[in-house]
Amino acid sequence: MPHAQLFVNTRTRTTPFTDRVEAAGVQAYTVYNHMLLPLVFRSLVEDYHHLKRHVQLWDVSCQRQVEIAGPDAARLVQLMTPRDISGAAVGRCLYTPLVDASGGMVNDPIVLKLADDRFWVSVGDSDVVLWADGLATGLGLDVRVEEPDVFPLAVQGPKAEELVARVFGEEVRAIRFFRFEALPFDGHRLRVARTGWSKQGGFEIYLDEPSLAGRLWDRLWAAGEDLSVGPGSPNLIERIEGGLLSYGGDMTRADNPFECRFDAFCHLDRPIDFLGRAALERIAETGPERRIVGLRIDTNVLPPCDRAWPVTSGDRPVGSVSSAVVSPDFGRGLAIAMVERSVWSPGTALVVHTPDGPYAATVSTLPFERDRAPVEAPAGLV
Amino acid sequence: MPHAQLFVNTRTRTTPFTDRVEAAGVQAYTVYNHMLLPLVFRSLVEDYHHLKRHVQLWDVSCQRQVEIAGPDAARLVQLMTPRDISGAAVGRCLYTPLVDASGGMVNDPIVLKLADDRFWVSVGDSDVVLWADGLATGLGLDVRVEEPDVFPLAVQGPKAEELVARVFGEEVRAIRFFRFEALPFDGHRLRVARTGWSKQGGFEIYLDEPSLAGRLWDRLWAAGEDLSVGPGSPNLIERIEGGLLSYGGDMTRADNPFECRFDAFCHLDRPIDFLGRAALERIAETGPERRIVGLRIDTNVLPPCDRAWPVTSGDRPVGSVSSAVVSPDFGRGLAIAMVERSVWSPGTALVVHTPDGPYAATVSTLPFERDRAPVEAPAGLV
Repeated sequence: MPHAQLFVNTRTRTTPFTDRVEAAGVQAYTVYNHMLLPLVFRSLVEDYHHLKRHVQLWDVSCQRQVEIAGPDAARLVQLMTPRDISGAAVGRCLYTPLVDASGGMVNDPIVLKLADDRFWVSVGDSDVVLWADGLATGLGLDVRVEEPDVFPLAVQGPKAEELVARVFGEEVRAIRFFRFEALPFDGHRLRVARTGWSKQGGFEIYLDEPSLAGRLWDRLWAAGEDLSVGPGSPNLIERIEGGLLSYGGDMTRADNPFECRFDAFCHLDRPIDFLGRAALERIAETGPERRIVGLRIDTNVLPPCDRAWPVTSGDRPVGSVSSAVVSPDFGRGLAIAMVERSVWSPGTALVVHTPDGPYAATVSTLPFERDRAPVEAPAGLV
Repeated sequence: MPHAQLFVNTRTRTTPFTDRVEAAGVQAYTVYNHMLLPLVFRSLVEDYHHLKRHVQLWDVSCQRQVEIAGPDAARLVQLMTPRDISGAAVGRCLYTPLVDASGGMVNDPIVLKLADDRFWVSVGDSDVVLWADGLATGLGLDVRVEEPDVFPLAVQGPKAEELVARVFGEEVRAIRFFRFEALPFDGHRLRVARTGWSKQGGFEIYLDEPSLAGRLWDRLWAAGEDLSVGPGSPNLIERIEGGLLSYGGDMTRADNPFECRFDAFCHLDRPIDFLGRAALERIAETGPERRIVGLRIDTNVLPPCDRAWPVTSGDRPVGSVSSAVVSPDFGRGLAIAMVERSVWSPGTALVVHTPDGPYAATVSTLPFERDRAPVEAPAGLV
């Protein structure tokens, strides 16, 4: 089932990089923000090993930019998030949970501060442009909300800095984590940020001139030949190992930021005005009733996690798995799960109920950390 | 390319009918409103012929319901659309273009009036729930905006009434076009509407009790054996013949309702309060500069339309095709295109530029009408 066919039409939009992605041998896509997101090239496992050793080009055009600009831009962005953005400098990239008036997660974008009155909200899989525009319209704010044609290309992997420096110049090396610089490329200036949805390091290049897409891809490709550059994508195994959450999969509007472990981005003690304040203050009083954790699963084989798997403590239902995969480097199953308070401490023994049967599992912190000593391959089915 | 693999995870949500759809041999999906929408079973052409002759079950769970309820519910729904909903009776289904303050199309749902203060907005492919919630929050309306778990199952085709009557009773036959009734099924009452995204007639059953999904599918399947019931889906060929527009493909927020030929749903002369009024009044003064039309294309072979195809009048660019397919019953290519005013009259000769080369085309009204006399198979490439 996870490898059914995808029927593509104009609604599931192609990107300026689609031709290159096809030529590079894409095998599977998903649809993300109404757009094609390539997900598998050689195989999930081969792509994973390559990402952790070399450098990859990722067509993440589907990370749409919601541009919020005008006199009330900063006010609107602040209204949408409990993270205090007031002190952020131009050139910063801010990971910001977006929260509705009930405290539910609307998205978890990176916000790029382009100017004091201009932001790009680089969104996960929900139409934040509609929410922001609805709020702006309803509140009568003096702001423009648009989704301009910006197509991010990520360069990820341990050799990413070397590759991007070869194409954009040595100043790339000075870009700090979660900062961006506008750097020249073929007579244009493209924003290059040290960000990306992997834990291997790298950059995202915000292409706002689609006609340059082919040249940008080809230049990086040619410059990276001796670095073993390859096509890639956000990798299910690597991102679960790294504890990176997927909006719409691991969390939705039914979850609040404390449940998602975003406490560090909930600045309830600061004098900022945001929609979810009353709701989050109520939750903060007692703390959340459940929370996202990692689970180490005692198996070397797992079916694809295409729907939530129940989690029990003995026979008692205590939560569900939202993402799971077998990690080659960990030599076992790893999962992201939402579980209730009574069982969320690291080390707690639980059971994960997959379509192939139940497996023993242990609660872990996120990101997952490699065991010092190798563990014997565990028994599997409970 | 249109049949790449789809990588499924929990973000691309399964539905309560997915197991039945898999068992029925689904070959291709799309992702629609973050959910799996089955699109091909036997083949596009076989599914098309079957739909026009028999009856099909469609898992259209992805038509998410945005529930708007409370004292200000009717006011909020009206704010979102230029269609006057004030006179609508409970039990009506209203096709309503949703329009933002700039006059852009946000969606084109069917609105079900459940009560004077409770509506289901059955949406196409955009997160209307975020827009409606943003507006409600910004305006401080006394209303609840939610996306409850409702999973529509469509029964479409010329034998649909017979089949649905066998399962839900003879009162089904009395349901008028674009009306719904709550009818008993296994101790529950399910809303059954005479609607659906085909021109072959049929019903949509709004399943709000997911545990009944298997029983509902199986009961319809068993009752329809002698009617040649089969699995199906919105069919690309049939819906283009019928001139049914796909939100996100044939129209987006860059298009206004006059361009989409929704003039009949723009009640600018009535004293209703909606967001896009000023913008639409401006456009109505001079009329739109471009409009969606049908194109008959002189060919029996077309590549998949996975991105916009340019349309020219001679060498002059005049618009683009958003959907195209070869129709077996018309014996030629049919397309939906947005073209400028100078060429939108039926009969105008244009050229469609496909990846396989240019083809001669003729502007047509929508829905397409069969020629009285058969036409000789045309020459193809210009």
